[in-house]
Amino acid sequence: MIKVGIVGGTGYTGVELLRLLAQHPQAELRVITSRGEAGAAVADMFPSLRGRVGLRFVAPDEAALESCDAVFFATPNGVAMGQVRSLLDAGVRVVDLAADFRLKDPAEWEKWYGMKHAAPEMIPEAVYGLPEVNREQIRSARLVANPGCYPTAVQLGFLPLIESGLVDTEHLIADAKSGVSGAGRKAEVHTLFSEASDNFKAYGVAGHRHLPEIRQGLSAAAGKQVGLVFVPHLTPMVRGIHATLYAQVRQEADFQVLFEARYKAEPFVDVMPFASHPDTRSVRAANTCRIALHRPQGGDTLVVLSVIDNLVKGAAGQAVQNMNIMFGFDECTGLSQIPVLP
Amino acid sequence: MIKVGIVGGTGYTGVELLRLLAQHPQAELRVITSRGEAGAAVADMFPSLRGRVGLRFVAPDEAALESCDAVFFATPNGVAMGQVRSLLDAGVRVVDLAADFRLKDPAEWEKWYGMKHAAPEMIPEAVYGLPEVNREQIRSARLVANPGCYPTAVQLGFLPLIESGLVDTEHLIADAKSGVSGAGRKAEVHTLFSEASDNFKAYGVAGHRHLPEIRQGLSAAAGKQVGLVFVPHLTPMVRGIHATLYAQVRQEADFQVLFEARYKAEPFVDVMPFASHPDTRSVRAANTCRIALHRPQGGDTLVVLSVIDNLVKGAAGQAVQNMNIMFGFDECTGLSQIPVLP
Amino acid sequence: MIKVGIVGGTGYTGVELLRLLAQHPQAELRVITSRGEAGAAVADMFPSLRGRVGLRFVAPDEAALESCDAVFFATPNGVAMGQVRSLLDAGVRVVDLAADFRLKDPAEWEKWYGMKHAAPEMIPEAVYGLPEVNREQIRSARLVANPGCYPTAVQLGFLPLIESGLVDTEHLIADAKSGVSGAGRKAEVHTLFSEASDNFKAYGVAGHRHLPEIRQGLSAAAGKQVGLVFVPHLTPMVRGIHATLYAQVRQEADFQVLFEARYKAEPFVDVMPFASHPDTRSVRAANTCRIALHRPQGGDTLVVLSVIDNLVKGAAGQAVQNMNIMFGFDECTGLSQIPVLP
Amino acid sequence: MIKVGIVGGTGYTGVELLRLLAQHPQAELRVITSRGEAGAAVADMFPSLRGRVGLRFVAPDEAALESCDAVFFATPNGVAMGQVRSLLDAGVRVVDLAADFRLKDPAEWEKWYGMKHAAPEMIPEAVYGLPEVNREQIRSARLVANPGCYPTAVQLGFLPLIESGLVDTEHLIADAKSGVSGAGRKAEVHTLFSEASDNFKAYGVAGHRHLPEIRQGLSAAAGKQVGLVFVPHLTPMVRGIHATLYAQVRQEADFQVLFEARYKAEPFVDVMPFASHPDTRSVRAANTCRIALHRPQGGDTLVVLSVIDNLVKGAAGQAVQNMNIMFGFDECTGLSQIPVLP
Repeated sequence: MIKVGIVGGTGYTGVELLRLLAQHPQAELRVITSRGEAGAAVADMFPSLRGRVGLRFVAPDEAALESCDAVFFATPNGVAMGQVRSLLDAGVRVVDLAADFRLKDPAEWEKWYGMKHAAPEMIPEAVYGLPEVNREQIRSARLVANPGCYPTAVQLGFLPLIESGLVDTEHLIADAKSGVSGAGRKAEVHTLFSEASDNFKAYGVAGHRHLPEIRQGLSAAAGKQVGLVFVPHLTPMVRGIHATLYAQVRQEADFQVLFEARYKAEPFVDVMPFASHPDTRSVRAANTCRIALHRPQGGDTLVVLSVIDNLVKGAAGQAVQNMNIMFGFDECTGLSQIPVLP
Repeated sequence: MIKVGIVGGTGYTGVELLRLLAQHPQAELRVITSRGEAGAAVADMFPSLRGRVGLRFVAPDEAALESCDAVFFATPNGVAMGQVRSLLDAGVRVVDLAADFRLKDPAEWEKWYGMKHAAPEMIPEAVYGLPEVNREQIRSARLVANPGCYPTAVQLGFLPLIESGLVDTEHLIADAKSGVSGAGRKAEVHTLFSEASDNFKAYGVAGHRHLPEIRQGLSAAAGKQVGLVFVPHLTPMVRGIHATLYAQVRQEADFQVLFEARYKAEPFVDVMPFASHPDTRSVRAANTCRIALHRPQGGDTLVVLSVIDNLVKGAAGQAVQNMNIMFGFDECTGLSQIPVLP
Repeated sequence: MIKVGIVGGTGYTGVELLRLLAQHPQAELRVITSRGEAGAAVADMFPSLRGRVGLRFVAPDEAALESCDAVFFATPNGVAMGQVRSLLDAGVRVVDLAADFRLKDPAEWEKWYGMKHAAPEMIPEAVYGLPEVNREQIRSARLVANPGCYPTAVQLGFLPLIESGLVDTEHLIADAKSGVSGAGRKAEVHTLFSEASDNFKAYGVAGHRHLPEIRQGLSAAAGKQVGLVFVPHLTPMVRGIHATLYAQVRQEADFQVLFEARYKAEPFVDVMPFASHPDTRSVRAANTCRIALHRPQGGDTLVVLSVIDNLVKGAAGQAVQNMNIMFGFDECTGLSQIPVLP
Repeated sequence: MIKVGIVGGTGYTGVELLRLLAQHPQAELRVITSRGEAGAAVADMFPSLRGRVGLRFVAPDEAALESCDAVFFATPNGVAMGQVRSLLDAGVRVVDLAADFRLKDPAEWEKWYGMKHAAPEMIPEAVYGLPEVNREQIRSARLVANPGCYPTAVQLGFLPLIESGLVDTEHLIADAKSGVSGAGRKAEVHTLFSEASDNFKAYGVAGHRHLPEIRQGLSAAAGKQVGLVFVPHLTPMVRGIHATLYAQVRQEADFQVLFEARYKAEPFVDVMPFASHPDTRSVRAANTCRIALHRPQGGDTLVVLSVIDNLVKGAAGQAVQNMNIMFGFDECTGLSQIPVLP
């Protein structure tokens, strides 16, 4: 049993962490911070937790985070980088669900996130928390940069192709669709029900912050810089990401076998039968990524469909998976919920 | 560990039973029947169960139901009544999620369900499976009639008032709103996405089959025939029932204390603070009923708000709760999932 | 052709006014104000108006409102009351879509709206703009207080019963359900897509601002103070209000005939056949109120179902209807759009 | 004023035709057929038409279609091809909203639609009703094959690029997302609310019937066979198609100017400013196609976003536009509704 803290628990990744950790047999929730809600009972803000989470929000300054074994940052970008140093010094291991430590190049980070990085010297130590790629480094990591939601779905879908060197890596296309919870719990006009419901649109086509993150991961897998067009869209549902990926085949292979072999040992990646159509609800509220391969009309374009729940495998679930790995628990502990369908 | 079978597993209560039972530590799923899908893998129809449920659908005639300890009927109305006798004779205990054994008066049943009852002689033995009312009888029951979704939400909201004799039982009003999954997984025009989405309507105002069921339960509690107007509505969401209940106060009391006392020992009924507004998502995918009391403008009308997930506390979850009681398990076994929010 | 201005055009009632007025053959849109968006093209904010509305938002201080024949206030509560005087003095006729002049009792208004009324002396002159009640006064009005959305649906549903004196007016119940656009276009957490979607809840049960407005209208019709319980709910759709109304019959009559006679000459009230179930989409984007009567189980409770589009008959459409009456146009001018279904 | 008939008026394209034609000043609705609903009032099935459409459905055999000037087929595929001959012989002009006459190669048609073509000899005469391409032929056409919804959005988005010869036509990608009304009003499980809501998925990746139609149109524009990958998706909204199109630039040009020039004279195509993000609701219930161009990161991939309302510009609206052209009316007659937003 480890002691766990959460910094910033009032957003959707925060409440999802609470849902998962409150059911985790090896983790004891000890502290959760919120500047705005200090003193309030967590279950008053999120009645779904009534009777299950007895904590109150604590002001950040008064939170006994140093006494935790693990601390999750479910904060806006730019918060964790100011607080991680002292936690690590106190022996706490940290999983940052925001973007502060995802990009290895601080200049690139500062360009995309529009602020000065407060702890560039810690970036090298941070391990990018995609277990399917970095499981061994995560085991011993003190600081894990939990991947973004789009990057998780897109990388897991592309990786077998990139690693195998069988496709053109200059012209990768990721057409991704996200549920609205991916935009967070901030009060903003464009994510109001009356704006986002019964509506569909692309956004950020000129450049979304997840683009450099995906490009970094795929380039590492390719051993060279990849070319990627990434078009995110907002779709009127709460949870879920559906990534539709396009790659040109350069060398033939049995791609279905390739994918199945790549993910055979992965507990949270499900390679479906060839030509399946995974739907986002088939992973709703679960830590699973389902992937299916298509070869339309037998042409030279491979289509990969990859779905996750953005709040679970795309955020809080993957964070718990990383915690499990870091602390030597069975990787599936607390993550065995069956998806909620319908 | 008991052996469990499901008759009719292709509807929404069926797949919800599968989700709950596959995670139940004391139940082993042994057989699931479907006439139309015999031979097909359950997880091919419901990909959310991939890797979790390995069963195939079996034709009803070939299903080894008699070797089960418990059998759930997740069938259309009128199926269970033809098969229950032989199962009971074989020593199997049965929970019927359909309506066959809910009404004590066979004539009334035949009027509302439009068919001849095939086993009226078994009706007296059947226990109405609302644990908050009939827990003791459920313990030893061979045949449990699992309540309807509306009846669960409405009865739990009205019961403390009726039992206490403090309100006018001649003019009860239940204005109830249901998510569309309550209509089942049949292909019908009025529940198509393009019909039910971005739309709201009442239906069945002239008389809904759940009316006699609610009336029977409330009349039993009152010790006399109650007068009830029940207006169901269809609201564009998948899961959830919200019952808004109106009763005229005849004698003053501290109604909040009354409700809290009535449900203090109930693990699945949550009486919220006075004047709360429970929302359906606060119980999504969980076996909880949340209730809140209001007294608008201090007048003589009490308003009770009662929410459940129609597929869980309104169907499959309550069925598992009944199974737990019948077999002497802790009542919460396999039902401790935290609601999924957002 | 009259010259028309809109104060506050960036909310949902504003853009709906623009949609209707841009298609109105007798109205010429001359000016639209917005403090925050001054200088911006209206069609840049609302691309649905590209090619149809060429105006730019103008700062309130620079808007030539006095040169208009009619000015609509689509502003938050409390704005119109500060500006109406000078407009009336300049000969402009005003329709206020906010609540400033809806309540006849300034003290009551100040209690419910939590601010001092800036122009109580003008309240007596203001005509409550429900044409089905006040058509003659609207004709000559200089200042029309456009009704709220709930009050429109509830009053039109109750009026024939109240006016006829056939029901108990002490125990009226209005259980109303609104789409989320009724909450406006303000950035707030509780109306985010991820909060309001796939969810249903009551709100404001202790007292909603539309309660005194409805009570005032019904009491006027009754000739005495009525007793009303009003419970509003938020339902996951963009447009539409469904009011389910309950009244106890005191004296028998052919209520269907009563309703049909009451609304025979009304172009925007449709009394459907007895026992119909009007759905909100049947009036989507149109200025119609559809009403149906029920008498469940032949008991003494009448149920009236009343649906409107909250942004049309509940706001902008009714405002245009009032303008038509005020300026002597055919009442249906510019309001003949057929509802959009599905 | 022309006399108009509709064959098959109970689906979504049928009711949308009714909405548009009932408001069309030059068209008089004379007859509407339905085998299943013969005798029923149209407005009983679609209450949105109460007071606006007084017709009753007529059995196909008894319908006086020959006396009409124009007849629309809003029928399943395979119906029009059996009836068109006799109507044309009677001097009636026909617009088929189904697929019977869209493909020029009968063998190709039979392959994709799985039935024998009943009137292959009439295919050459049929004009593909995309006014932006075939306006002149439509003018004098007796038989117009109204385009599919996806084909309209995809072709309008790609055409300027293909016609100009500036992009690689071997590797076109169309990632398209449709609202559920595109699947029609048939009772089917996969389009139930509880299946399609809060969910996103691709479908028909192996080959959708609209693929050959799009390929035919683009190949004609290119003067050679194009290579196209077409991936349709189902998104949880009622109306709207969003096509995200990808093309590799072969020769540089000012593509924004190219698009604006191509569609300058088109009343129903709106080329938005460069790098805009059109949303589907900006064309809801209107006959408009909005298009925006992107050049992500200045790379060699052009991204075109194209949105329509699948029931209007993708079906009934385009059919009325074709009728207007055929009968010499102003092309916008009856099609000037402003989109409904929100």
